[in-house]
Amino acid sequence: MKKGLLGVGYAVPRQDAWTKVTGEEKFAADYYPENLLWAGAKRAGVSHGRILRVDVAAAQALPGVVAVLTRKDVPGTNRQGIVHKDQPVLAGEKVRHRGEPVALVLAETREVLAQALARIRVEIEPLPAVFDPEEALQPGAPQLHERGNLLLRAKIEQGQADEAFKECDVVVAETFEVPFQEHGFLETQNGLAWQEPDGSIVMIVSTQAPFRDRFEIAHALGLEMGAIRVISPYLGGGFGGKDGATVQCLLALAAMHAGGRPVKMWWDREESFIAGYKRHAARLYYRAGAKADGTLHALHCRLYYDSGAYAHLGGEIMELGMEHAGGPYRLPHTCIEGWCVYTNNPIGGAMRGFGVCQVSFAFERIMDLLASKLGLDPLDFRRRNALQRGDKNCAGVTLVHSTGLVPCLEAIKRHALWTDREKWKQGAGPFKKRGVGLAAVFNAMGYGRGLPDSAIAKLELTPEGKFRIYNSVPDMGQGNATAFLQMAGEILGQDASRLELVPPDTARSLPSGSSSASRTTYTFGNALIRACQEMKEKLCHRAALVLMTDEVRGFALVPGKVRHLPSGRNLDLEFLAGLFPETDRSSVSQFVMPVAQDVPDTGKEFFIGFPHVFFSYAAHLVYVEVDELTGTIEVRDYLAVTEGGRVINPQGFEQQVQGAVAQGIGYALMEQVLLHQGEILNPNLTNYILPTSRDIPGIESMAVETVEPTGPFGMKGIGEVGANAPLPAIAAALEDALGLRLTRSPFTPDRVLGKMSQGAR
Amino acid sequence: MKKGLLGVGYAVPRQDAWTKVTGEEKFAADYYPENLLWAGAKRAGVSHGRILRVDVAAAQALPGVVAVLTRKDVPGTNRQGIVHKDQPVLAGEKVRHRGEPVALVLAETREVLAQALARIRVEIEPLPAVFDPEEALQPGAPQLHERGNLLLRAKIEQGQADEAFKECDVVVAETFEVPFQEHGFLETQNGLAWQEPDGSIVMIVSTQAPFRDRFEIAHALGLEMGAIRVISPYLGGGFGGKDGATVQCLLALAAMHAGGRPVKMWWDREESFIAGYKRHAARLYYRAGAKADGTLHALHCRLYYDSGAYAHLGGEIMELGMEHAGGPYRLPHTCIEGWCVYTNNPIGGAMRGFGVCQVSFAFERIMDLLASKLGLDPLDFRRRNALQRGDKNCAGVTLVHSTGLVPCLEAIKRHALWTDREKWKQGAGPFKKRGVGLAAVFNAMGYGRGLPDSAIAKLELTPEGKFRIYNSVPDMGQGNATAFLQMAGEILGQDASRLELVPPDTARSLPSGSSSASRTTYTFGNALIRACQEMKEKLCHRAALVLMTDEVRGFALVPGKVRHLPSGRNLDLEFLAGLFPETDRSSVSQFVMPVAQDVPDTGKEFFIGFPHVFFSYAAHLVYVEVDELTGTIEVRDYLAVTEGGRVINPQGFEQQVQGAVAQGIGYALMEQVLLHQGEILNPNLTNYILPTSRDIPGIESMAVETVEPTGPFGMKGIGEVGANAPLPAIAAALEDALGLRLTRSPFTPDRVLGKMSQGAR
Repeated sequence: MKKGLLGVGYAVPRQDAWTKVTGEEKFAADYYPENLLWAGAKRAGVSHGRILRVDVAAAQALPGVVAVLTRKDVPGTNRQGIVHKDQPVLAGEKVRHRGEPVALVLAETREVLAQALARIRVEIEPLPAVFDPEEALQPGAPQLHERGNLLLRAKIEQGQADEAFKECDVVVAETFEVPFQEHGFLETQNGLAWQEPDGSIVMIVSTQAPFRDRFEIAHALGLEMGAIRVISPYLGGGFGGKDGATVQCLLALAAMHAGGRPVKMWWDREESFIAGYKRHAARLYYRAGAKADGTLHALHCRLYYDSGAYAHLGGEIMELGMEHAGGPYRLPHTCIEGWCVYTNNPIGGAMRGFGVCQVSFAFERIMDLLASKLGLDPLDFRRRNALQRGDKNCAGVTLVHSTGLVPCLEAIKRHALWTDREKWKQGAGPFKKRGVGLAAVFNAMGYGRGLPDSAIAKLELTPEGKFRIYNSVPDMGQGNATAFLQMAGEILGQDASRLELVPPDTARSLPSGSSSASRTTYTFGNALIRACQEMKEKLCHRAALVLMTDEVRGFALVPGKVRHLPSGRNLDLEFLAGLFPETDRSSVSQFVMPVAQDVPDTGKEFFIGFPHVFFSYAAHLVYVEVDELTGTIEVRDYLAVTEGGRVINPQGFEQQVQGAVAQGIGYALMEQVLLHQGEILNPNLTNYILPTSRDIPGIESMAVETVEPTGPFGMKGIGEVGANAPLPAIAAALEDALGLRLTRSPFTPDRVLGKMSQGAR
Repeated sequence: MKKGLLGVGYAVPRQDAWTKVTGEEKFAADYYPENLLWAGAKRAGVSHGRILRVDVAAAQALPGVVAVLTRKDVPGTNRQGIVHKDQPVLAGEKVRHRGEPVALVLAETREVLAQALARIRVEIEPLPAVFDPEEALQPGAPQLHERGNLLLRAKIEQGQADEAFKECDVVVAETFEVPFQEHGFLETQNGLAWQEPDGSIVMIVSTQAPFRDRFEIAHALGLEMGAIRVISPYLGGGFGGKDGATVQCLLALAAMHAGGRPVKMWWDREESFIAGYKRHAARLYYRAGAKADGTLHALHCRLYYDSGAYAHLGGEIMELGMEHAGGPYRLPHTCIEGWCVYTNNPIGGAMRGFGVCQVSFAFERIMDLLASKLGLDPLDFRRRNALQRGDKNCAGVTLVHSTGLVPCLEAIKRHALWTDREKWKQGAGPFKKRGVGLAAVFNAMGYGRGLPDSAIAKLELTPEGKFRIYNSVPDMGQGNATAFLQMAGEILGQDASRLELVPPDTARSLPSGSSSASRTTYTFGNALIRACQEMKEKLCHRAALVLMTDEVRGFALVPGKVRHLPSGRNLDLEFLAGLFPETDRSSVSQFVMPVAQDVPDTGKEFFIGFPHVFFSYAAHLVYVEVDELTGTIEVRDYLAVTEGGRVINPQGFEQQVQGAVAQGIGYALMEQVLLHQGEILNPNLTNYILPTSRDIPGIESMAVETVEPTGPFGMKGIGEVGANAPLPAIAAALEDALGLRLTRSPFTPDRVLGKMSQGAR
């Protein structure tokens, strides 16, 4: 399998494909060492309450139970959280959502673990609870945290929105609602940990942020960060749900009580639903206006994000929503208000599209409403207002990097699915209605201002003359590991058999942030490129020394060798490796993503992460057919055009787009965490329905290749942008098909039928 | 002593000054470990002969003698030599000069060593010998080597010299002769070596080329290069005489027979004279012509360099002579022929000015003859013909780098010593004659084409938060170590107390070529600058990570800390060092000197080292007073104007110039290795007279600062250029004073008186 030159731009199959399909590749969940203990958490089962007593005696008495731990056993701050450390490892006084862990059990087997958890008695005095962000802001609402229910309130202003509305020829307003969405990864949260004789903790865990995990564990449990080692194998999916502590602190705590034995914690699907993070539910109030000539002019919106019981990245997610609230358009006058609010719902957190999926739905629908009122073609209307380089976006930030929405829209316009749409719609059979919908979206790349979006790549020339990349940003399935091998192969001129990749391991690789924010390949890739170039230069230089040649320009790296092109002489890499002292066989280089220099005087309430300078763009077109009798919606065809700079690997690019669209179709048509008083009614894949291959049409992915000069080989991240468009595109297609305006997702058959029975508004 | 910010451009006292004056600094000669053995060589004492027998029995019988070794004990090729390996470690069949070693003794004390050497009987059948290079080329001359007496014959041609002479309005011709010159360093050749239990050899040796020494020893003695470690402390002078094997192979051979005990070999002054390398004696036939308007037009010269018994760098030294034979002037038509010839004289080798001192004498005198014939002022004549950037030099190579002779000449022209010279001459007392002489010179920097002129610098951030430079190019007194500390201090913003320098050690530093060819500070400095910049970038990046700051531009290094300027927050370097994994605490970077791209179709006989692209320039003015009664010459005043790009350290710059001028004055007035049939008649400092401080006037050094963009902070090497001018300048002053043309140096009183008695020609 390890054959062929790995280069940039080639549709190289992902290098982990073979080991994954054969089962050879070990995910964190695949580790079952000898002498294993199982750990599990007892969860509150109450949405809001005061803990009176946690009775663990019966559990402790059970044979095979090694330890039962509660709040008093947590030696550190007991607090975790990426920006705000407000989430307890084990709750001691209060519980704020039903999934809150109150005790931790270590047992010899999974069966004993289940029995022991069942025997723990938790007495909780219920407190009044609140489950809606707007209600939570009302005076007298039950308060979750000492500082109240408001996690973040912020405002972005540009121009003078109030005045500008008076200048508009058309104004529309609408309210939108989206539910919590589950990540639904194949491999649920899990890890394995043990304590070394020196007291340090080693953890193999399914995580997107191994380096940050060390900090979380150290802070929560009062450990030295250097005494924690986190190893991150390939993930069976992440989508943001493994960015932040899941099992990490509980597992480290368990390991501290396991007497050196390895401890495994693996949430089953139901626990994953109950205790894991979700895409934030949101309610979005929009009002926007345009001029008669089709120029967007003013926007005012109020965005309420439901953070659930804890902060996680709620504030930052709302920021992204606000920054993208005006869509990828020129909008001179905006007033964008946001509230991110604690409720007793499950915890909201990072998920692909990170706050942007929500507003994309709203704003793209607003665009259609405006186009309709103005009597304009929705594509032309978008094209006319599309952001181009040099424009200011809705947050007042001038776009100085690659900005490729226009070519995306133009590609759609030229495509047969666009030009033939009316014909297709007319071909609907009996009791079927057909509609076509369009959406244009964008998504920021990187952390944004306020913290370093940086990576440190290490490349080693092994004594055998191979190259080993020390990856420090986990591959959760998106394929960044293969992209790194391609980049290294491109620069070092080596085939797959001579390139190795070490998965992230805080003891071997170097801090490079998280796998998230569409930053992974861009940021680490840039650092890696520099490390590879340094290595190449070093090797050519050493070869010049050995061959006593006066300049290094004549040297090239070819598989296994350095070649002096003018003379054709070769030096084996293995031979050269033998000349290097050990400290000189590796090349370490770092990269920091550029940040906005044009920082507008707005959004001052934002702590970190605003504004961004890099965005990827996409325009999606969808064909939808509705069964008038059942309300069933079938997505019949799908075209996704994406601008993400240069494409490193067309196959990987398309896989990312396909995955994002599938996840977006699920979000549009079926996925919603059903909640009643904070309780998840569908905490399993039998009733939380994810789209299967039968629900997803053939998706055509087209790349509009621009060049982002700061990117590795000109690329930008496109892992998220594709997830933002399906919901608004499908909503537009439904309106086109049925004349119905659906403002609350997902568009389940019952909801569609209900709306149809009310008639078009 | 270790105080103050070390920056570039400051007249920082050399950082080794204090340890040297207090005796704390250990030169190689200062090592006297326990259990020491002494090694010494029995030398042939015959200029040319066949070895019949080496009887070592009496020596071996002497109590305290550990071993007596001869040719048969040498396990490898027994050959050493930088380019041509023609010089035996111990002669076995033939001796080619009187200093040839034929046996090696290891003894418990220096006294026993001397007795043992005296007891060795060497029977040599004398062979006819030859002591003049031109005679050595005659048919029937005694042949030193199997391939004959001609080491290298080469020709540089540009334009059509033969034809061009017909176009000249004036033509002059003259023959010049210069003798062998001794380096006369304070610390004679010496070293200490021992064999480790694993068989490897460790050597502390006074050397200019520790990395090449490993190769010489390995080749000569059949060892693995990796099993030899060479450490090079500060040298008590080198001047080229420690570039190439002196004690190295003999000492390694001794160590292999010392049973693990340390062995010291230290040549006394006489042995240093007899066995060490010398500046080549040369005979130079010049013919040159100019146009009536003062334009140089044609040159034909034949240069004979006496390489003595072995090659050392003789061919390359002659090349440099040929490349500089036309002086720093535009000369459209040249035919420069060179012969480097073996004789039974002592071995010629590298010395400051490397072949250029010889031709500078000749060509600068030719310039004066032409100026005189043309009735032109010698300064204006030089100014008119001076090379400028874009011109071709006498070898036909276009000068594309900094070329600063014109400003040097202009600085002389403005100087009071120039404008007041006639007045000064008129003030001569009774029996005194005064003259003023001018010379303009240049000197190539670097190895030239054909082999990599490269360096690899390593910089370490120590766990204590200091910076340690791993120097790999020895400091023989020229001050490069201090220049490196200044460069690192400049970039890293640290004071002297936070900067350390490890002297060259093949086990700790990385191959960077020799300390020679005016390349040392330029080549290693460039590599070091890159290593420092990488380190700085790395540190600012890590600090940005720690402080969670989004860009690295706001960070600066200040003594002991990294400072975030916008916030004023500081991070101790010691703290940051603790965050680095060990492999990441050092920064290694390399540099290769650019080479000529405009390689003329001439000099094809040259093996390596032609042509050069970088030159430093100088113009010197000297005031000389001659005592008519005794022939004594007194140098009364001296002005040296030097162009070497930017000045890193004005104090170091001036010291280099002063040293070069002093050595040049010695070369002009008193230094000559007196030879009779290959025997040195003055092998000691009692009769080989070096100038003392009483012989040297106050020397005014002026720097004309240009910028060499490829140089570290804009500098070029100036260690050699200053040595080329005193001889021609003093000769010019003597002609000015006495009306005598002296074409054979040195200008000793007897020679001057003799010439005076012949009368002016």
